[in-house]
Amino acid sequence: MSMKAKYAHESMTVTTEHVLPNDTNALGNLFGGRLLQWMDTTSAIAAHRHCKRVVVTATVNNVSFKEPIKLGSIVTLEAKVSRAFSSSMEIYIDVFVEDSVTGQRKKCNEAIYTFVAIDQNGSPLPVPELIPETEEEKMRFDGALRRKQLALILAGKMAPNDASELRELFMGK
Amino acid sequence: MSMKAKYAHESMTVTTEHVLPNDTNALGNLFGGRLLQWMDTTSAIAAHRHCKRVVVTATVNNVSFKEPIKLGSIVTLEAKVSRAFSSSMEIYIDVFVEDSVTGQRKKCNEAIYTFVAIDQNGSPLPVPELIPETEEEKMRFDGALRRKQLALILAGKMAPNDASELRELFMGK
Amino acid sequence: MSMKAKYAHESMTVTTEHVLPNDTNALGNLFGGRLLQWMDTTSAIAAHRHCKRVVVTATVNNVSFKEPIKLGSIVTLEAKVSRAFSSSMEIYIDVFVEDSVTGQRKKCNEAIYTFVAIDQNGSPLPVPELIPETEEEKMRFDGALRRKQLALILAGKMAPNDASELRELFMGK
Amino acid sequence: MSMKAKYAHESMTVTTEHVLPNDTNALGNLFGGRLLQWMDTTSAIAAHRHCKRVVVTATVNNVSFKEPIKLGSIVTLEAKVSRAFSSSMEIYIDVFVEDSVTGQRKKCNEAIYTFVAIDQNGSPLPVPELIPETEEEKMRFDGALRRKQLALILAGKMAPNDASELRELFMGK
Amino acid sequence: MSMKAKYAHESMTVTTEHVLPNDTNALGNLFGGRLLQWMDTTSAIAAHRHCKRVVVTATVNNVSFKEPIKLGSIVTLEAKVSRAFSSSMEIYIDVFVEDSVTGQRKKCNEAIYTFVAIDQNGSPLPVPELIPETEEEKMRFDGALRRKQLALILAGKMAPNDASELRELFMGK
Amino acid sequence: MSMKAKYAHESMTVTTEHVLPNDTNALGNLFGGRLLQWMDTTSAIAAHRHCKRVVVTATVNNVSFKEPIKLGSIVTLEAKVSRAFSSSMEIYIDVFVEDSVTGQRKKCNEAIYTFVAIDQNGSPLPVPELIPETEEEKMRFDGALRRKQLALILAGKMAPNDASELRELFMGK
Repeated sequence: MSMKAKYAHESMTVTTEHVLPNDTNALGNLFGGRLLQWMDTTSAIAAHRHCKRVVVTATVNNVSFKEPIKLGSIVTLEAKVSRAFSSSMEIYIDVFVEDSVTGQRKKCNEAIYTFVAIDQNGSPLPVPELIPETEEEKMRFDGALRRKQLALILAGKMAPNDASELRELFMGK
Repeated sequence: MSMKAKYAHESMTVTTEHVLPNDTNALGNLFGGRLLQWMDTTSAIAAHRHCKRVVVTATVNNVSFKEPIKLGSIVTLEAKVSRAFSSSMEIYIDVFVEDSVTGQRKKCNEAIYTFVAIDQNGSPLPVPELIPETEEEKMRFDGALRRKQLALILAGKMAPNDASELRELFMGK
Repeated sequence: MSMKAKYAHESMTVTTEHVLPNDTNALGNLFGGRLLQWMDTTSAIAAHRHCKRVVVTATVNNVSFKEPIKLGSIVTLEAKVSRAFSSSMEIYIDVFVEDSVTGQRKKCNEAIYTFVAIDQNGSPLPVPELIPETEEEKMRFDGALRRKQLALILAGKMAPNDASELRELFMGK
Repeated sequence: MSMKAKYAHESMTVTTEHVLPNDTNALGNLFGGRLLQWMDTTSAIAAHRHCKRVVVTATVNNVSFKEPIKLGSIVTLEAKVSRAFSSSMEIYIDVFVEDSVTGQRKKCNEAIYTFVAIDQNGSPLPVPELIPETEEEKMRFDGALRRKQLALILAGKMAPNDASELRELFMGK
Repeated sequence: MSMKAKYAHESMTVTTEHVLPNDTNALGNLFGGRLLQWMDTTSAIAAHRHCKRVVVTATVNNVSFKEPIKLGSIVTLEAKVSRAFSSSMEIYIDVFVEDSVTGQRKKCNEAIYTFVAIDQNGSPLPVPELIPETEEEKMRFDGALRRKQLALILAGKMAPNDASELRELFMGK
Repeated sequence: MSMKAKYAHESMTVTTEHVLPNDTNALGNLFGGRLLQWMDTTSAIAAHRHCKRVVVTATVNNVSFKEPIKLGSIVTLEAKVSRAFSSSMEIYIDVFVEDSVTGQRKKCNEAIYTFVAIDQNGSPLPVPELIPETEEEKMRFDGALRRKQLALILAGKMAPNDASELRELFMGK
C-alpha cells in the first residue's frame, strides 16, 4: 500500500495555556505533571494530524524541566512530528513562556513523545513517511533514528553493534 | 553537613485510581497524559517522603505504555526512590491494573522520574542517601547510575569515555 | 450458592492525595466535601475488591472532621471492609495526614460507608462473608452489627427490643 | 452577647446540577461521592447564610442513597438549617431528581450535615438561634436534639441516662 | 399540533456557586469564562424545563460584566424563559452576589442566551408558548421581539424596514 | 502618554482542544458553555498580548452556535484583537473543527468578546491603538465601531442620532 508522505509543518499543533492556581505547587510554580499532560494532548493531536488515525502514547523520553513556570504565566506548546517509522511517530514538543511585560517568549522546555497509530482492535497501522524541510526539522529527523536505536538497545531488542550511529558516540568513528 | 541515609521502602507511596470517562480516548482507554500526571503526583510524594523538602520534577524518561487500560479499571501506582544523588532523586513507578473478576493484578507500566529538592528561592538542596535492601531495589539502584551517565552524555555534559558502565553496553568489558 | 469468605486485609485500599488550592476553603484548609468524595472513591474500591461486583454507595455515617487539613498536606486514606452482610458491606476509612518535616503521620479522620453489590438491573447481589483477623478488625466487625441495628431502628425497620447489643448501651445488661 | 435569632427559611439554599459523564459509575448512575460533595457545598452555604461566618463541616450522618440517579438527570439540592446549637448548626439537605418528560420532581435523597462556625484561628464562634416555622421545620428541629444526644453517647461524651428522649426509643416512657 | 402554553415561573432555575481559587484571575476575581459556563448550564436547564426536550445553546448576547466578583463569594444565578418562538427560547439570567456580613444580595450581572429544542437528529422541534405574568416578565417578553429582529437584521436575514419596533429607536414613531 | 500602536497579528492566539466526554451533552455534542469558556480564555490571552496588562471580560456578544461539534473532535480557536478603544479591546474569535479523515478544517463558530485593561485597583488603563492590515482585519475594525455604538444605544448611553453608521442600516444614507 502506498501512502503519501507528508511535510513536518502539516502536523504543527499549537496550544496556549494559562497557569491557574490548581496547576501549581507550594512555591506557586507549574507542576510537572500538569505540563506532562498538556504536552501529551498537544502532541497526540500533532500525531493524529499526520496519520489521520486514532493514536496512543507509546513512550515518553527526554523531558527535562529547566525553568520554573510561575502562576499566571502564559504557556505556549508547539508540537510537530519529527520522524515517522512504520507505525509510530516521534513528536517534538517545544514549550515557551512569555514575559508578561515585554511579551518576549522564551523557550523553557522540550520533550519527545512517540505515538502509535492503531485500529479499532488496538493493532498498529502503517503511517505516512515524514519529509523534513527546515534545518531544525532535518536535525530532529536524524536524531530520531539514534533515539530509536538507543531505546531498542536499552529494551534489549537490538544488539549494540547494529546501532552504528550510537556506537560513534562511545567509540569515535 | 551529615544527613541520615534512608531506606528505599520509607518513601513507598501508593495511589489507587479509578478510570473515569474523562480519562479515556476514543477507544475507551486511559489517555497517556492522564497517567503521566498521576505518575508525577505519586512520585513527587515519594521524593518528598525521602527528603522532606519541596521537590520539583526534573526529568522524565523511560516511560512506555505497553497495555491499554480500559474505562472503569482500577489502577494502582507504586512509587519508591531508587537512588539519591547530591540534590536529585530518581523515582521508579510501577503501575498495575487489576482484573475486575479475579482481582489479579498485572503490571502494565513502568516509568522513571527524577526530582530535585529546592529551597524557597528554587536553589537545589542536598538530600539524604538511599539504602537499597531488596534485590529489585539494588538492581534499580545500580541502573540509576547508568541512566544518569547516559543523560549527561546525551546533554553533552559528560565525555562518553568517562561513563564506564555505559561503555560496556557498546564495547564489551 | 456458596461463596468463599475473605479476609479483611484482602480489600485494603490505599490512596495518597495532595491538597491543592481548589480543595481548600477561605482559611486554606481542605473542604469537607472534597474529603467525602475521596473517601467514597477509596472505599468503593475496597468494597469492589471484596465482592468483585459493581458497588454503589448505600449509606454514610459517623463521619467527623476533627482536625483542619492544610493546603499542601499529603493525605493518606486507608479503607477496608469491616463486615459483610447479605448484599451490603460496611467499610471503615482511616484518614492520615503527615507532618512535612518529621514525616510522622497522624490520624485526623475516620468514617464509615456502606456499599451494596448490584447487578446490571440494579438488584442486590450476595457478597462473600468477611473474616476479621487483627484486634482492630474484630472490634470493628462487632461494632458493625450494632451500627446496623441502630440504622434499622432509626429507619423504623426494627423494634428496639430486638436490638440486644444496643439496648445494653441504654439499660445496662 | 445577644445575637438575633433567625428563621429557618432565611438559610434556604438551592443548587441545580446536571449529571455529566464524569459524575457517573459503570452503570451510568451518579456516584455517591459526587453527590456527597454537592451536598457539602450546598449545606455549607446554608450554614454560612445563618451565621455569616466561615463554617467548616463537623459531621456527616444519616445519608442514604435510595434511588439511582441517571446520567443526564437534573438534580436539585435544597438545604436549610434545622437547628442551631452554641456554635454548631445542623443542616438538612433534600435531594430531588426531575422526570425529563413530565418535569415532576421526586425526592431521591436526604442527608444531615453539621457545621461549626469558626474564627481565623479555627476556634468556635457562637451562632444565632434558629426559629422553626413550618411543621417539617419543627419536626426536624426536635429530631436534631435526639441526633445530638445519640452522637454524644456514641462518642462516649454523654451518659445514656441523660439522653431522655433517646431512652424512650429503647425503654418506653 | 397544539401544545399547552406555560408560565415563565415554571422554568425558574436557581444555582448557587462558591467562587474557588481556580475560578479566579490574577486579581482574585471570578473569570468571565467561568461565569459564562455557569450561566449556560443554568439557562439550559431553564430552557429544558420549559419544553422538556434536549436543548442546545443557539446564541449568546448582551452579557456585560459590571462588577468584579471576589474569591470566596457566594454567587446565585436565576434563569427564566423570557419568550418562546417557534422552536427557540430566550432565557434571561440574573446573577447576584451576597455580602458575606450583611447577607444582602446585589445584582452584579445579567445575560441573555437563546436555546433551540432539537430531536435526536439535531432538527428543531416546536416549543410551547410562554405566558409572562409579572411586570418584569412582560417587559422582557416585549424586549425579546426587538432583540430577535435586531439579530435577524445584523445577520442579513430581515430588512430593517420590517423591524417596526427597532425603527422607532432610530427614527422616532 | 504615548503608547506604540500594534498590529492585529501581534495578538494572534491559537488554542487546540480535544472534545472529551465531560464536554458533551446528551447527544454527544460539545456544550455551549464549555466553548464559551474556551473562547474567553483564548481571547483574554489575545487581549493581554495587545496591552500587556491584566484584562477582564467586559461584554460578550454575537456568539452563535451553528454546527454541532462531536465528541472526539479537534477544535481550534483563533483570537485576535479587532479594534482597540481607550481602555477596551474588541476580540474576534474564529472556531474551527477539523475532519478526522481529510483533516480539512471548517469554520463552525465566531464570537466577539470585549475586554478592559485594569490596574491593581480595578481602574481602567489606556491601551495601545490597533493597526489592521489584511482585508478581514480592516472589515472587522470598521464593524467594531458600529457594534460599540449599538451597545451604547441599547444601554441608553448614546443618542441614536449620533450613531451615524448605524442609522444608515435603518434609514439609508
